[in-house]
Amino acid sequence: MPFHLYFNGEISPLDSTIFKSNDLAILRGFGMFDYFRTYNGVPFRWDDYWQRFENSAKLLKLPLPLNQGEVAKILADLHALSGEPEVAFRFVLTGGYAPDSVHVVEPNFLIRTEALPQDNPAALLKGMKVLQYQYVRDLPEIKTTNYVHMVLMADEMKKQGASDLLFHKDGEISELTRSNFFIFKGDTLITSDTNILRGITRKVVLELADAHFKVEVRPLLYSELETADEAFTTSSTKWVMPIVQIGDKLVGDGKAGKRTLFLQELFKKVVVDWGK
Amino acid sequence: MPFHLYFNGEISPLDSTIFKSNDLAILRGFGMFDYFRTYNGVPFRWDDYWQRFENSAKLLKLPLPLNQGEVAKILADLHALSGEPEVAFRFVLTGGYAPDSVHVVEPNFLIRTEALPQDNPAALLKGMKVLQYQYVRDLPEIKTTNYVHMVLMADEMKKQGASDLLFHKDGEISELTRSNFFIFKGDTLITSDTNILRGITRKVVLELADAHFKVEVRPLLYSELETADEAFTTSSTKWVMPIVQIGDKLVGDGKAGKRTLFLQELFKKVVVDWGK
Repeated sequence: MPFHLYFNGEISPLDSTIFKSNDLAILRGFGMFDYFRTYNGVPFRWDDYWQRFENSAKLLKLPLPLNQGEVAKILADLHALSGEPEVAFRFVLTGGYAPDSVHVVEPNFLIRTEALPQDNPAALLKGMKVLQYQYVRDLPEIKTTNYVHMVLMADEMKKQGASDLLFHKDGEISELTRSNFFIFKGDTLITSDTNILRGITRKVVLELADAHFKVEVRPLLYSELETADEAFTTSSTKWVMPIVQIGDKLVGDGKAGKRTLFLQELFKKVVVDWGK
Repeated sequence: MPFHLYFNGEISPLDSTIFKSNDLAILRGFGMFDYFRTYNGVPFRWDDYWQRFENSAKLLKLPLPLNQGEVAKILADLHALSGEPEVAFRFVLTGGYAPDSVHVVEPNFLIRTEALPQDNPAALLKGMKVLQYQYVRDLPEIKTTNYVHMVLMADEMKKQGASDLLFHKDGEISELTRSNFFIFKGDTLITSDTNILRGITRKVVLELADAHFKVEVRPLLYSELETADEAFTTSSTKWVMPIVQIGDKLVGDGKAGKRTLFLQELFKKVVVDWGK
């Protein structure tokens, strides 16, 4: 296996046994992560991802053992070891080993090199179905490792032919399990600014949309789905993915929206040219 | 180190490196646990703890790799290896290694033998201070590993001389981070039945209280603290621990309540005689 991981100063094969059993991520779910990929061999929007990672660490009061420059060198080493033109990286920072199973002593820092998710160009044009789910992520502005509901619902989603959950609570839509949510009403693009993780793809799409659409970044009501013409979600792996069905209800005419596909094309150009 | 752990069929020293990095507890916070101890060398209320563990597993849709009898044999082996008269056991069942970082394939089952927490008889008589905290545990009836708020607030608690957080939301008290909550109003004992983990110590205390007090198991309002004469919390490690202060406010006269101490004595008798 050419993929490797970095753990507390050492690089070893990706399937290495590395964690002792009293890590606070294992005992107490106390951990955070981030995930991004390369285009043309260059980590995409690396400054943004690093900044978000630093911010999550700060909010969880976990000191980062390395600075951005040191981590960049490790990424280059891991990438070279993989022998692949493109890779994804997953950072995980945990509360570390806790003698008393409660207090943080020293975080454990893991970087996994991972294969890119398989491209699915057909899905990008066809769009996906999601299920509505009454839930709001705890500490939503932190990319904690808490994805219990996503894992718990994985089989049910599959059974219903759905790819994700649309989280909403008290009448407001926040996000999907791992991605942000947008709707179009005519030429107005709307996305939530409340109870969300600030996605880097979301940020890029907002930058791109600004020249072409009216943009509203504000609390998004669940009832607004009724009058939405288009919907889509954004993430590092999903890019700009049309959402054509929510539970039993079609969004608009149930087909990928033309404005959504336009933004998807703009985003594609950014990544195709990345690092050139 | 005489303490050992069991992990997927093997017994090894407690500080062994055993987990690969793509366990769903590490990547997605998808795990559950339980914790109990021996008295007179015999696991306390083992049937109750096992039943709760089974229930958590069922609710997280994780198949248990062993039955109660098989686990009992492992506990006996771990106990013998420890060389200690009394030990605590921590079970952790995780979503296991996930090639796609989402779907459960096969859970990982860990049993840790741990030293008992240090006895603190003075605290049992003096009682403790807690901080109020607006929060309700996600999936409260499952003993998931999600204790992010507890770890996050550990330093703040220490700073304020407090031992725990009292969770309440929308006007209702649920529980503390790892223990249940009771109040006395005169001779009436009240504890919540909503949004709680059903503690085994709570169950024993309710059994014991039944012959001596009027018992109400029902939603408990935060506003009822104003008129509470006594308060206490119950857990495997805290037994029946008086709560004498919540933030800046004293409970009753700020001293351990006499009814609380009476229940504490009854509970002590149960554990002192356990297994005899």
